[in-house]
Amino acid sequence: MAGTKERIVGTTGELFRRQGYPGTGLKQIVAAAGAPFGSIYHFFPGGKQQLAAEVIRTSGRAYQQLVEAILDQAPDAITAVETGFAAAAETLVATGYADACPIATVALEVASTDETLREATAEVFAAWVDSGAMRFERWGFAPDDARRLATVLITSLEGAFVLCRAARNTEALAAAASAVRAAVREVSSPEGR
Amino acid sequence: MAGTKERIVGTTGELFRRQGYPGTGLKQIVAAAGAPFGSIYHFFPGGKQQLAAEVIRTSGRAYQQLVEAILDQAPDAITAVETGFAAAAETLVATGYADACPIATVALEVASTDETLREATAEVFAAWVDSGAMRFERWGFAPDDARRLATVLITSLEGAFVLCRAARNTEALAAAASAVRAAVREVSSPEGR
Repeated sequence: MAGTKERIVGTTGELFRRQGYPGTGLKQIVAAAGAPFGSIYHFFPGGKQQLAAEVIRTSGRAYQQLVEAILDQAPDAITAVETGFAAAAETLVATGYADACPIATVALEVASTDETLREATAEVFAAWVDSGAMRFERWGFAPDDARRLATVLITSLEGAFVLCRAARNTEALAAAASAVRAAVREVSSPEGR
Repeated sequence: MAGTKERIVGTTGELFRRQGYPGTGLKQIVAAAGAPFGSIYHFFPGGKQQLAAEVIRTSGRAYQQLVEAILDQAPDAITAVETGFAAAAETLVATGYADACPIATVALEVASTDETLREATAEVFAAWVDSGAMRFERWGFAPDDARRLATVLITSLEGAFVLCRAARNTEALAAAASAVRAAVREVSSPEGR
């Protein structure tokens, strides 16, 4: 059954991203993954919760690597912000406004209902902030500003995804990008804050 | 049965906010609302979807009035942003990080799965942007900037809610507020953008 586990995790991630955690049943997962029903409990004895925790961590890591690859091509913070938001808008449009953040839907669903999964989402967001902060430091920002700007970048994308997916246009991403640029420029300017 | 409909809508809104749309069953709704099962189909012949559309619109309007009441006490945009984010942080902490945006969880869940409900969430967000834009105009901003800043305010709150509810702290709200202030100041400054 080589590859079955990965297929289950990948398929579940796709389903969570589009319809959330409670809305995704194990039967739908095995059907979509082309896997026998028993394989879920073979790989995930803890059932849906354990599978979900693995999906959150795996898709969080994959998304982080994707974003890092984009950010690392940018010579400075402003270019990185512009390229990152442009890539996010392009992906949204290309997928009919389906593919945005891989874990946001689940994060909101489990925040007050499942402590194990809430912690998994918190770890992913914390890793994203750390990754972004390291890059803002590399672009010349002091550690505190770098951490704040990385948080701004991530929250701005997350919030814009909510509005853009609802409206089926990219206006909120454009507005959010302008605020991240303003935050970056405010720290970069000689007058400081 | 005076008040039963309102009780069903209010209870469902609370449940959606905390655990989402697919995770909330009609049996749970009537139990929590103390209403007979048949009352749901009496008031909402279209069942769960029709109830959900009503909940999205009703809780969207209520939240808008709440936020407007806060914003309308502020003499200028910067004070409004600071008061708004402070109120959001206070509510989050007071409710154990449960009560944030009333429709974000459902908005992400239905964006790619239920066109009727997606449109209901899009209408609510559009009404919020209009309401915010009117206020930024009143604080002296040109219509285009006012609309962009209102969108920035809403997306920043939405994104920060996702990270704050996951992390159970208000760090992301503080970071997001700093970016909204930067966006406001950038337009207000004599150099403009």
